[in-house]
Amino acid sequence: KRPREYGIRFGVLPTGPLNAITDVPGVRVGQVTINEGKSIRTGVTAIIAHDGNQFQQKSPAAIYIGNGFGKLMGYSQVEELGTLETPIILTNTLSVPTAADALIDYTLAQKGNEQVRSVNSIVGETNDGFLNDIRGRHVTKQHVLDAIRQAKTGAVEEGNVGAGTGTVCFGFKGGIGSSSRKLPASLGGYTVGVLVQTNFGGVLQIAGVPIGVELGRYDFKKNLDGSCMMVVLTDAPLDARNLKRLAKRAFMGLAQTGGIASNGSGDYVIAVSTAYHIPHETTSSFDELKLVRNDNVSPLFLAAIEATEEAIINSLFAAQTLSGDQGHQIDKLPIEKVVELLKKAGQAR
Amino acid sequence: KRPREYGIRFGVLPTGPLNAITDVPGVRVGQVTINEGKSIRTGVTAIIAHDGNQFQQKSPAAIYIGNGFGKLMGYSQVEELGTLETPIILTNTLSVPTAADALIDYTLAQKGNEQVRSVNSIVGETNDGFLNDIRGRHVTKQHVLDAIRQAKTGAVEEGNVGAGTGTVCFGFKGGIGSSSRKLPASLGGYTVGVLVQTNFGGVLQIAGVPIGVELGRYDFKKNLDGSCMMVVLTDAPLDARNLKRLAKRAFMGLAQTGGIASNGSGDYVIAVSTAYHIPHETTSSFDELKLVRNDNVSPLFLAAIEATEEAIINSLFAAQTLSGDQGHQIDKLPIEKVVELLKKAGQAR
Amino acid sequence: KRPREYGIRFGVLPTGPLNAITDVPGVRVGQVTINEGKSIRTGVTAIIAHDGNQFQQKSPAAIYIGNGFGKLMGYSQVEELGTLETPIILTNTLSVPTAADALIDYTLAQKGNEQVRSVNSIVGETNDGFLNDIRGRHVTKQHVLDAIRQAKTGAVEEGNVGAGTGTVCFGFKGGIGSSSRKLPASLGGYTVGVLVQTNFGGVLQIAGVPIGVELGRYDFKKNLDGSCMMVVLTDAPLDARNLKRLAKRAFMGLAQTGGIASNGSGDYVIAVSTAYHIPHETTSSFDELKLVRNDNVSPLFLAAIEATEEAIINSLFAAQTLSGDQGHQIDKLPIEKVVELLKKAGQAR
Amino acid sequence: KRPREYGIRFGVLPTGPLNAITDVPGVRVGQVTINEGKSIRTGVTAIIAHDGNQFQQKSPAAIYIGNGFGKLMGYSQVEELGTLETPIILTNTLSVPTAADALIDYTLAQKGNEQVRSVNSIVGETNDGFLNDIRGRHVTKQHVLDAIRQAKTGAVEEGNVGAGTGTVCFGFKGGIGSSSRKLPASLGGYTVGVLVQTNFGGVLQIAGVPIGVELGRYDFKKNLDGSCMMVVLTDAPLDARNLKRLAKRAFMGLAQTGGIASNGSGDYVIAVSTAYHIPHETTSSFDELKLVRNDNVSPLFLAAIEATEEAIINSLFAAQTLSGDQGHQIDKLPIEKVVELLKKAGQAR
Repeated sequence: KRPREYGIRFGVLPTGPLNAITDVPGVRVGQVTINEGKSIRTGVTAIIAHDGNQFQQKSPAAIYIGNGFGKLMGYSQVEELGTLETPIILTNTLSVPTAADALIDYTLAQKGNEQVRSVNSIVGETNDGFLNDIRGRHVTKQHVLDAIRQAKTGAVEEGNVGAGTGTVCFGFKGGIGSSSRKLPASLGGYTVGVLVQTNFGGVLQIAGVPIGVELGRYDFKKNLDGSCMMVVLTDAPLDARNLKRLAKRAFMGLAQTGGIASNGSGDYVIAVSTAYHIPHETTSSFDELKLVRNDNVSPLFLAAIEATEEAIINSLFAAQTLSGDQGHQIDKLPIEKVVELLKKAGQAR
Repeated sequence: KRPREYGIRFGVLPTGPLNAITDVPGVRVGQVTINEGKSIRTGVTAIIAHDGNQFQQKSPAAIYIGNGFGKLMGYSQVEELGTLETPIILTNTLSVPTAADALIDYTLAQKGNEQVRSVNSIVGETNDGFLNDIRGRHVTKQHVLDAIRQAKTGAVEEGNVGAGTGTVCFGFKGGIGSSSRKLPASLGGYTVGVLVQTNFGGVLQIAGVPIGVELGRYDFKKNLDGSCMMVVLTDAPLDARNLKRLAKRAFMGLAQTGGIASNGSGDYVIAVSTAYHIPHETTSSFDELKLVRNDNVSPLFLAAIEATEEAIINSLFAAQTLSGDQGHQIDKLPIEKVVELLKKAGQAR
Repeated sequence: KRPREYGIRFGVLPTGPLNAITDVPGVRVGQVTINEGKSIRTGVTAIIAHDGNQFQQKSPAAIYIGNGFGKLMGYSQVEELGTLETPIILTNTLSVPTAADALIDYTLAQKGNEQVRSVNSIVGETNDGFLNDIRGRHVTKQHVLDAIRQAKTGAVEEGNVGAGTGTVCFGFKGGIGSSSRKLPASLGGYTVGVLVQTNFGGVLQIAGVPIGVELGRYDFKKNLDGSCMMVVLTDAPLDARNLKRLAKRAFMGLAQTGGIASNGSGDYVIAVSTAYHIPHETTSSFDELKLVRNDNVSPLFLAAIEATEEAIINSLFAAQTLSGDQGHQIDKLPIEKVVELLKKAGQAR
Repeated sequence: KRPREYGIRFGVLPTGPLNAITDVPGVRVGQVTINEGKSIRTGVTAIIAHDGNQFQQKSPAAIYIGNGFGKLMGYSQVEELGTLETPIILTNTLSVPTAADALIDYTLAQKGNEQVRSVNSIVGETNDGFLNDIRGRHVTKQHVLDAIRQAKTGAVEEGNVGAGTGTVCFGFKGGIGSSSRKLPASLGGYTVGVLVQTNFGGVLQIAGVPIGVELGRYDFKKNLDGSCMMVVLTDAPLDARNLKRLAKRAFMGLAQTGGIASNGSGDYVIAVSTAYHIPHETTSSFDELKLVRNDNVSPLFLAAIEATEEAIINSLFAAQTLSGDQGHQIDKLPIEKVVELLKKAGQAR
C-alpha cells in the first residue's frame, strides 16, 4: 500500500491520476531489476520524456546539483544549451560509463541519427555498494537498452526495482518512488511528476512527523556514499532557466523528508519540460516559444516540492527487506509502527 | 515565550546556552527599530563577526543564493575571494544603498583604515513594503551606524525588531529570529548560530506539524516580494567552499518550515567562520590554515538546518500584531491555537 | 583620432556606422564628468537600453563575472529572473551606493511606477582611487540623474569622461571606450555594441602587437584594485542564457588586449537585448518569444569579442594625460610611438 | 620544430626546461595513438598528477567550463569537494564512457583500493569525427590503461598523437600541445604547465599576428562540434577556489589564439595542484594547509594564460597533414608561410 492509502497527505495540491511521473502525458518509465545470487542487487531505471527521436527533437531541460558528491554524467551540456537529447538513465555509481555507452548505442542506432557524431548521455546514479557487489559492475549495456525498450506509460513500479534495487534510505531499504501533482486549471492545469532513486540519510520525517527520532534510527555522522537522484517532468512550457529553478525545489522536497545532503551525498535533480521541443536541425534561425512567465511559476515550485517529498516516502513504503553482498541486510521501514506513529500525530487514518 | 518553552523541539542536536547566533563566541548583534507615526515600520540589524577591525582581519565567508529575487549587495567579491570585510547589515529593500554607504563610512573611519579605497559592503534585505512606507526610505546612515555601535553579545531580541520590524511571514507577522546548535565534543564541539529576517510565504509547518493547513492560512499563488535573509556563523574552521555548502543547508532549514522560495522571494544565506582570519596585509605569501575535513562537515550541515528552522519559527513566536502603512495590519501567529495544534500532534507539552 | 583612423583593424567583422554601443537602435549613453580642483577626478556613465519605462518593460539581460573583486550591484536578480529593470550606471567603487540610490529615485519617480516597491539597481564600478579622492565620495545622486537625463543616441564620447574620468589602464590613462559590430544580413544582420570603463592591467597588446613589451610598460605583480566594466547591447533576440554566453565572449575580448584579470580586478560584463521586452505586468500568463537558436549565436560571439577588444583600445587612444589626487599623474598612451610600432608590424597605415 | 625555435615568443614569462606540462615535478603524460586503416584516427592522452595512489592521496583540483557543449565526465564532484582522485584522460567524444570505465578498472585494481566503491573518473574529450570514424568507437579500455601505464616524465609528444590524433584546429590539423612557465623566485618560483587537445575554430592569431586573416582561412559561421580541452598543472599550493580562477585564465589563453568558444565548442579546463595531497582517509579531523594568498596569485594567472596560448600554437606546429574517414583530409598549418608572416610582423626571426 502506498502512503496515501493510509490517509497520509503530503502538502496541499492534488495528485495526478496515477500519482506518478507518468501522469505527465507521454512520459514513460522502464526498469530492469538485477537481483542475482547472493550479492548482485542493482538495476537500471530509464525515464523517457519524448515519444519519438529525442536527439532530433530535444527537450528543454536543466540539472540542479544539491550536493555534488556523485558521478552524474551530462551536466555541462544541459547547463550550456538548456536541452536534453537522450533518455535519462539511473543506475549504480560504477555503472555510469556502461549506461552512458548504451545511450550512445541507442542514439546512434536510431533511425534518422545516421550522421550523429556527438551524444550527451544523461546518467544519474546512487551507490548501492552496501547490498550490491558494485565493484563487479554487473549492469550491462543490454540491461540499459532493455530498460529503454520496455519503458511504458502507466503506473510506476516502486521500491526494490530498477536502479533502486539495492539502495538504502534513512537506514531502511530505499528504492524507486514516484509521485505527481496536478495544478488546478486556474493555475495553468499543469502536471509535475517526480521519480526518485533514494539512497540517502538524515533524520527521517514523514508528513512532518519525526519518525527517525521516534524509532531512534537516524545518523548524521557517517560519511555515507549515499545520494538521491530526482527526476522532475512537467508539461508546463518552461525554459531551462525556470526548469533549473523548478529542479531546486525538488531538492527542497528532499529537505522536507529530513534529508541533510551530507558530505557524501550526490543529490541531483534533472528537470525536463515536455511542452515543446527544440529541433536538432531546422531551416529556421529561430526558436518560437510560448513560456510560462516568471510570475506564474510559484505553484509549479510547490508542486515539485510536494511530489518529491511524497515520491521519497513512496519509495520507503514500497521497498522490501533485502539481504545482499557480504551478508549485509537492510530492513524495510516498519510500516505498521510508522503508521501508528503517524496516526498518533494525526497524520494518518 | 520562545517555542522551546512550550516543549517544541526542532531536530536532534542541542542548542547553545542562549539558543542564538551569539552563542558563537565573539559574535555581536545590534538592532535599530524604526517605528514612527502611522506608516514607518522598518529598521536595521547588524551582525558583527569580528571584535576588531573586520577589514584588516577578514573572515572566511560564503554566500548561497536560494532564490535571487533580491538586492543583496556584496555577493561577487565574497564568491571570488572567500572573505568578508565588513559587518553584515540587514534592512529593507530600498534602503540597501543607504546601508552600504554607511558601511563604507564605518570602514573608512576605522583606525588603521586610513589608506582603504575599496570596501565590499555586505547588505541583505527583505521587502517590508506592506506595513512600511518603503518608498519613503526612512533608514538613514545614522541608523545603520547606531546598529553597529550598539551591537553586543548576549541574547538576541526577536520579532518586530531591527530589520524585522515590518516583515510578514506565512501571512503572519514575521521578524528577526535566532537559534543555535552546539555539536558534542566527539563531533568537534563547534557552535553554529543562525539569525533570520523572515518575510516569506509558503505552507507553514512548525516542527513538522502542518499549521498553515490547519489554520487554513497559506498561499502560494501570489508573487509576493517576500524574502528570507539567513546569516550563519560558526566557530568551526571552514573555508569558503565548505561555508557555501553550510549556507545551502540553511536554505534546507527554510524548506523545513514550509517555505517554497516563490518566484518573488529573495532567499540568501551568508555564512561566516570566526575560527580564523585572513589578514588584509601581511609579510607572508601564504595563508596557513587548519580546516575541518570534508568528511567531518555533515554534523555541521545538520546543525545549520535545525538552527535555521528554529530561528524562523522563533521569529514568528516573538513577533507581535502590527499595523502600518495605508492602514495595513498583519496579525501575529495565534500562539495559543498553534500550541494546541502542536500538542495534539505530540509536538508540544 | 580613433585607432581605425590610423588603419588599425580589430578582427574581421564590419563595425556599425558610429562604431559605438549606440549603433544598437534605441540605445542611449549619458555621461557626467566630475573634474574639480586638484583631487576630484571621477564621474558617471549611464547606458539606457530602453526608450520608455524600463521597469515596466524589462529587457532580457545577463551578467557574467570575469573576476569578482568588485562591487557591482544587482547581480543576483538578473541571474534569477533574466531581466534588467533600470538604466545601467557606471561610476567609482565607493559611489556605488549613491548611484544605486539614485536609480531608485529615478525609478520611483517615473510615471507609471507609483506602486513600485522594489527596484533592482544595476551599478558597476572601477576604482579610480589613484587619481581621484575616492574616499571623498564626490559623486552625488544629482550627478547620476543628470547622466540619465542627458543620455542620447549618436556618437559616444570616449577617454577621460564620465565613469572613465580617473581610470588607469595598462599603466596608461584609461577611460570610456565604445565599439560595435554589424553582422551581415546572411548571419542575421544584428548589431552588437560594447561600452567599457577601462581600469585594469596586464601586458598590453593592440591588434595583437605586443605594445606593453615594446614600451617596457607592463606589470602583473601588483595587486591593483583595477577592474574593467563591459556593457554589451544587441538587437539580436536572445534570452538570458544566450546573453550570458555573449557576455562571456566580451571577457574573451578583454583577454585579446592582454588583460589578465588579476586578483584585484573586478571584471564584469552586463549583456542586454533590445529586441523585445518582458512586461512587468500583463494579463497573459505567457511570454511569447522568438529567439535566435543556439546554432546561430557564434557570429554574435565573435562580434562581442571584437567590439570589446576595440572598445578597450579606443578608450586608450581617447584618454588624455591627467594628474589628480596626491599629485599623482598618469600619462596617456604615447600614440605616435604606438602607431609607429603598429606600422612596423603591419597593423597600421 | 617548435615555434620557439623560430624565435616566436608568447608573453613575457620564461618557460620551464622542457616547455611542457611535465616541467611540473612529478607530472607524467602517456599517449596511445590509434591510427589504423583508412578511417580510424583517434587516441588517448593520460595526464597523471600523482606518482602513487591518486585515489588515496587526492590532489586539490578545479574544473572551469568555458563553453559547455561537451561531455567531460567528473565535473560535479570536483566542484563540490575540490579534489581529483584519478588520472585525467583525454579522448574522443563518443569514447568518454569507455575511458571512464577504464579509470574505474584502474582505480579498483590499485593496491590499497580493495574497499573502494566509488570512483570519480575525469575524462575530457573533443570530437575528432571529421577524420575519425568516431561512431565506430575504436578506443578500448586497454588503450586507456596503456596510456596510463606508459605515462612518463620528460618531453611531451605533440601534434597527431594520443587524443589529438584526429583533431582539427582553426581549419588546420590540430592535436596535442604543451607548454609551461616558471615564475622567478621572487614571485614564488612556481611552475605552471599546460597540455591541450586542440579541436576548435575562430580566427587564428599567432603571437598576436592575424594569421587566419592573412591566409584567408577562418570561419565563425559553422556550428562545428569543435572543442578545446586544457589541463593545467602547478606546484603552487592553491586550493580549489584559486585553482578554478587559474583554470579560467587558461581559457583567456585560448582567447589569445583567436578562439571564440563557438556554440558547438566544449572548452574545459582542469586545474590541479601537485603541492599537497588530501588523504582519502586519515585519523585527523583536519586538513592543514599552507596556501598561496589571493594577493599572490596574479603571476600564476599570467603564467596560465601564456602557457595555454603557446601550448595551442605548439599543437598546430607539430601536427601533420592527415587524411581519414570518408576520404576527408586536413592540411597541416603551412609553417613556412606562417613563419614568413610572423617575420614580417617582427614576431619571428
